[in-house]
Amino acid sequence: MPLSQDEQDALRRRCRIVVGGHRDSAPGEELSQVGEWCREHGWHADRYGDGALIGAFETRIATLLGKDAAVFMPSGTMAQQIALRIWSDRRGTRTVAFHPTCHLEIHEQKGYQMLHGLHGRLVGDPDRLITLSDLEGIHEPVAALLLELPQREIGGLLPAWDDLVAQTSWARERGVALHLDGARLWQTGPFYQRDHAQIAGLFDSVYVSFYKDLHALAGAALAGDAEFVAEARVWQRRHGGNLVTMHPFVVSAELSLDRWLERIPEDVAHARALAAALGTVEGIEVVPDPPQTPMFHILLRGDRERLADAALAVAEERKVFLFGDPDPTTSPSVQRHEVMVGDATLQLGPEEVAELYADVLARANPR
Amino acid sequence: MPLSQDEQDALRRRCRIVVGGHRDSAPGEELSQVGEWCREHGWHADRYGDGALIGAFETRIATLLGKDAAVFMPSGTMAQQIALRIWSDRRGTRTVAFHPTCHLEIHEQKGYQMLHGLHGRLVGDPDRLITLSDLEGIHEPVAALLLELPQREIGGLLPAWDDLVAQTSWARERGVALHLDGARLWQTGPFYQRDHAQIAGLFDSVYVSFYKDLHALAGAALAGDAEFVAEARVWQRRHGGNLVTMHPFVVSAELSLDRWLERIPEDVAHARALAAALGTVEGIEVVPDPPQTPMFHILLRGDRERLADAALAVAEERKVFLFGDPDPTTSPSVQRHEVMVGDATLQLGPEEVAELYADVLARANPR
Repeated sequence: MPLSQDEQDALRRRCRIVVGGHRDSAPGEELSQVGEWCREHGWHADRYGDGALIGAFETRIATLLGKDAAVFMPSGTMAQQIALRIWSDRRGTRTVAFHPTCHLEIHEQKGYQMLHGLHGRLVGDPDRLITLSDLEGIHEPVAALLLELPQREIGGLLPAWDDLVAQTSWARERGVALHLDGARLWQTGPFYQRDHAQIAGLFDSVYVSFYKDLHALAGAALAGDAEFVAEARVWQRRHGGNLVTMHPFVVSAELSLDRWLERIPEDVAHARALAAALGTVEGIEVVPDPPQTPMFHILLRGDRERLADAALAVAEERKVFLFGDPDPTTSPSVQRHEVMVGDATLQLGPEEVAELYADVLARANPR
Repeated sequence: MPLSQDEQDALRRRCRIVVGGHRDSAPGEELSQVGEWCREHGWHADRYGDGALIGAFETRIATLLGKDAAVFMPSGTMAQQIALRIWSDRRGTRTVAFHPTCHLEIHEQKGYQMLHGLHGRLVGDPDRLITLSDLEGIHEPVAALLLELPQREIGGLLPAWDDLVAQTSWARERGVALHLDGARLWQTGPFYQRDHAQIAGLFDSVYVSFYKDLHALAGAALAGDAEFVAEARVWQRRHGGNLVTMHPFVVSAELSLDRWLERIPEDVAHARALAAALGTVEGIEVVPDPPQTPMFHILLRGDRERLADAALAVAEERKVFLFGDPDPTTSPSVQRHEVMVGDATLQLGPEEVAELYADVLARANPR
């Protein structure tokens, strides 16, 4: 019997160690830190996005991404719909192109259609990265091409740099605007061995998130040229995203950037070591192998409900939380879950984690 | 020379007393209190609006408004567009009716048109409340009628209860959905001598704000029947308003409701006393007279720039901030600003405030 989300959360909190992601902070801890930081620095709340604190942070993000300007927004869902709407209005066509597992397609209740009247031209196979030949198969006017780096739903995959350049060149030659879904752009430095501005430099507009890899309370930014960002602010108000104040999120993002960004290479190295150890466990396949970012998928042989029960039993007995309810895959006998390496993961050695997974598999697949 | 917003803010902070609204809290103070409250009560962050804390707060609001359900949203802009879109889809017509100074018409960059494709049928005169005869002048299908209680842009005016009942009956008889813009619904109790649920009971859906009268960090709620609220949650995701966590806003709203709601009658009484004192100053007209809520307008005789300069000079010299740059009115020789009575206002007696305004008027209109 699978646990409810509340029961799972309670179990996670009872565990000594949670293998994925960052350690949960104690209730109110992040807010108290943010409050203390405001007090120390004498920062008052911004008003409707206007204020020295939020302005300086937007400049910091624009600089980091090598763009003229950036705007802080409460969510990526808002930021990306706005980016595509602006490019669509400027190109005079409603069609935008993205991967079948794009966040806009699968996690936003089709806001891009229902609010903006955009048409999504899906490009490529759901289980693979977009290729140049996928793009060459497009035979209709397209306002914008959205590329997600890394492609989250397929284990944080990244195209080789040359492929990325070829794809963005394809768009540029056709006057198609390029938008980067950089929710997890922070993860890509080690793979590309390039800084964020160089990667973002291939695109006209870039969205980044502050709560995913960087573990801030919430918030996102959208960057591009000054006119683009000025128009994005108009759309932000239309969306209801121009909140009376966002300083809790802005300060948290500021602190998180300082705290976590430089640790990403270490997380990527650990992801590779962990994936190597897990790859030796019978009944486990790691995707991609080796990981290209701090994120990868673990495919587990076994029945979905048995695996969930086994993982929860291991959590109860050994006080290490590995995963809750895994996702189904094409094969009924293979389940999947995502691992995101964060400071929580670093508390255990790869061999220890591999042994815990072996325990789960043995319980779920008794001989 | 008018000051910039930053300069005005700095001047306000240098003043001993700011007459309008609530006292500014110190930097980080509200966040530290919110953090401490989470720690004390052991509340973890909600995840995408899911969690015991936010759920309990939504129930509290639904109960207060006498509705089946409520959903917490980051902004009223989002909440109200969503309400009108839902009613529009259900009634099968794109036209919605509201006052010419409705927030959707003048403060949201026409999001209701640009995102939702709705048509706004403006009802009544911008300087007066909607009347039954205004409604009887509508001769086209209308999905929803939005009424704002109190009507903020005209000094917080409220229709008499019988007028309100007549207007809502007009809508009900025609199958027009009724939406209440209750951004400042909290202010209306003393005028109607009815509780919030009775007032909200005339409407199908209700929006309330937590940061206006209640002075919370940010946030709003939308209440109605269970199906309506369930659909509103879908639209909230489409808008990008289903943030990864909203607990800073939710806790702040919870604390603010406890702190400020019961003080509203005192604020209304003070608004009436203050308006009476101001009404004796030559060159001042108070609208409405007497005030019906803690909010009213002050019309000031004089040139706009001279009045602004005089008010800022008084702020510098006497350390009491009355207003910044007043709004123009139909008459070039009359300017206007809004007063919202809050705990800051209560620091000075009505006669003292009247004397300060007399000083401003004398400086702006030398003999």
